[in-house]
Amino acid sequence: MKPIQVGLIGLGTVGAGTFNVLQRNQAEIRGRAGRGIEIAMVAARNAERAKAYQAIVGDAVPCTGDAQQLVNNPAIDIVVELIGGIEPARTLVLQAIANGKHVVTANKALLALHGSEIFAAAREKGVTVAFEAAVAGGIPIIKALREGLTANRIEWIAGIINGTTNFILSEMRGKGLDFATVLKEAQRLGYAEADPTFDIEGVDAAHKLTLMSAIAFGVPVQFDKAHVEGISSLQATDIKYAEQLGYRIKLLGITRRRDNGIELRVHPTLIPASRLIANVEGAMNAVVVQADAVGTTLYYGKGAGAEPTASAVVADLVDVTRLATADPDHRVPHLAFQPDAISNTPVLGMDEVQTAFYLRLVVADQPGVLSRITTILAESDISIDAVLQRESADGERQTDLIILTHDTVEGRMNNALAKMQALSTVLAPIVKLRKEELA
Amino acid sequence: MKPIQVGLIGLGTVGAGTFNVLQRNQAEIRGRAGRGIEIAMVAARNAERAKAYQAIVGDAVPCTGDAQQLVNNPAIDIVVELIGGIEPARTLVLQAIANGKHVVTANKALLALHGSEIFAAAREKGVTVAFEAAVAGGIPIIKALREGLTANRIEWIAGIINGTTNFILSEMRGKGLDFATVLKEAQRLGYAEADPTFDIEGVDAAHKLTLMSAIAFGVPVQFDKAHVEGISSLQATDIKYAEQLGYRIKLLGITRRRDNGIELRVHPTLIPASRLIANVEGAMNAVVVQADAVGTTLYYGKGAGAEPTASAVVADLVDVTRLATADPDHRVPHLAFQPDAISNTPVLGMDEVQTAFYLRLVVADQPGVLSRITTILAESDISIDAVLQRESADGERQTDLIILTHDTVEGRMNNALAKMQALSTVLAPIVKLRKEELA
Repeated sequence: MKPIQVGLIGLGTVGAGTFNVLQRNQAEIRGRAGRGIEIAMVAARNAERAKAYQAIVGDAVPCTGDAQQLVNNPAIDIVVELIGGIEPARTLVLQAIANGKHVVTANKALLALHGSEIFAAAREKGVTVAFEAAVAGGIPIIKALREGLTANRIEWIAGIINGTTNFILSEMRGKGLDFATVLKEAQRLGYAEADPTFDIEGVDAAHKLTLMSAIAFGVPVQFDKAHVEGISSLQATDIKYAEQLGYRIKLLGITRRRDNGIELRVHPTLIPASRLIANVEGAMNAVVVQADAVGTTLYYGKGAGAEPTASAVVADLVDVTRLATADPDHRVPHLAFQPDAISNTPVLGMDEVQTAFYLRLVVADQPGVLSRITTILAESDISIDAVLQRESADGERQTDLIILTHDTVEGRMNNALAKMQALSTVLAPIVKLRKEELA
Repeated sequence: MKPIQVGLIGLGTVGAGTFNVLQRNQAEIRGRAGRGIEIAMVAARNAERAKAYQAIVGDAVPCTGDAQQLVNNPAIDIVVELIGGIEPARTLVLQAIANGKHVVTANKALLALHGSEIFAAAREKGVTVAFEAAVAGGIPIIKALREGLTANRIEWIAGIINGTTNFILSEMRGKGLDFATVLKEAQRLGYAEADPTFDIEGVDAAHKLTLMSAIAFGVPVQFDKAHVEGISSLQATDIKYAEQLGYRIKLLGITRRRDNGIELRVHPTLIPASRLIANVEGAMNAVVVQADAVGTTLYYGKGAGAEPTASAVVADLVDVTRLATADPDHRVPHLAFQPDAISNTPVLGMDEVQTAFYLRLVVADQPGVLSRITTILAESDISIDAVLQRESADGERQTDLIILTHDTVEGRMNNALAKMQALSTVLAPIVKLRKEELA
């Protein structure tokens, strides 16, 4: 059978990785797919860049500075979009779909924001938009959720899905350094970008979480409902206290099904140090899935980088190649559930989210302080799991008070916090972090 | 569309789990598969058992004591075989295939021994034999290897794929107990069977490893070539020494591609305590896959039990349901590679396997002993990674000498061991364990 023809938009890190993997492993890939997979054309953002690409891919593969030429090329069966960002990616993807081409993309931002539009267009044209590479790089987590766990009612997902922040948190804990210092080091080593905002503020993780939440629970992608909180204000002190209490702090993306809706949130989270995921260090990713039949499963690997991401892109190419001839109704649905089975379960606001809390209060070292604070918690019906009060050194007038609570609704906790903050014996803004047992 | 009709052979632990999961999650499963999945008939091994099953499944589903009736029932689309063992499972599966039915099975022994025959028959009839449940219970590792990592040249797989033995090893290490004591406890708790031979001697793990090796490397299933070694002769002393050196001992199934062939071996293995897989405790399973593009990935979850295994059975049912109408040439091949891409790379004998070693020698406490032993190793071109010599107590005439080596070929190590064993200062049989860095 004639090799399937692929058009590659973008030959940056992941694009070049994809090109290399397809070249190097072409025999193995053909042996699995039953058909060759060939790059027929490469598109760059302009003519100059196209010339640079031409030098990389050799003369046999035409490179163009006009991606329109690629998405309109009738010889191309599958368009691989690896330029990232919203535009022109969105327009090119929609145009490829309109031309009846399958699409493979690593673009989490595009799908988290415009997934509904894109998947609807693809459904109408009977083509597939595959996006394994959009979440957790080379870990086949989309496949696991969408195909591997189809027997299950999924209860929750918690993932370390941003390597930059996990690297930073690992270094902060391992070396006792503060955020700003480690960020600079991460930038020097290439683990963080020059403008690291999307990573360190949790936006990248929230894009990925939004996609996982949709396929786990059968709801539309709705990034605008996600709670997004990064690690830039996390203090080394709290990492140290957490450790003393038996916890590690990780930036987790958490989505959980509750009776009244779905939680969708990214924030620094205390988790027991004994959990496997607490021991995922450096730039690695891991996703824990809790589901009713299978129980807990965990998926671990490299969440970024040229070839790990290319591994996911090529897996999608093989899937699409295999199924290009299958009746569209018999393919795996984009969002795991058939369109008529997508539910409108609401995403809960943070006030309604249930979780446990870590609180750090700087309090005056005088009698009655702990009593007043615990009274506020008791009156709010929030129960305490553990208290750690640092012994104050001689002559010190203030001390740190750490409280771990049991699960409560966040709105209630915020009301109690406002009352505590108003106490004259509470001397600084209270640090509030969320805590999950993940069991 | 009419629900797909499933015949279930066996309603033991996994069969009942499958029945329950299909009932409980039928709405979610239909929402994903786009079509209902219905148990149309259940078969037991005899009429009496069929009567007991009838009470469980209710009157709507006929139960028969004659499985022939089920595999010959023209109303049934998919046969699920959950009775285990070789016969009558083999005959029933082949008959179902001959009747043009798809088969889903959790039977690792059957496929490891008779997979070539069964897959060939299925290919000829254009039906699918799905076996996610045969390896590592609910962890979707077959899907990950066969579809998630298609871009890669897989280099090696190392897995904790038997929960019984991992439970026993965890307890031996955690409580410092010996094998026999912990085995009794495991039997009392239901983690080990009354006749635990298949588990503790590594046979069950070798069945699963054989299947993973075939789909990773594109070779036929060949259980007869596997090296199978269990944990029944493992001593608490060696677990303790390993820990002092920074290692844990796990029963691993390891398959690795070498230039001259494929390693296929199950044995107790020292691995660095810092590896994620070293921290997989109790009856849990985990599989590490090393591949050229994606790097290291790990998959973790429950490897046995009613609903975790049912999770895999039902995932296969959904896959088969979805693709029942697709051209057989476009389905995922049974052994990951297309039949004409299956290679005849040989499985290496243990003498040719490369690994590092842990040796424990009981030696006379006198001058020159260490020198004689290290000379034998040096003459055999085996280099030493670490030595630990226990200080002998006053009056003791013997001491333990622990040696960690670098990688070598096992045949060479065995020759060296024979020379050491012949020394008059070596007072007991030498303990030899294999060691892998898994990096």
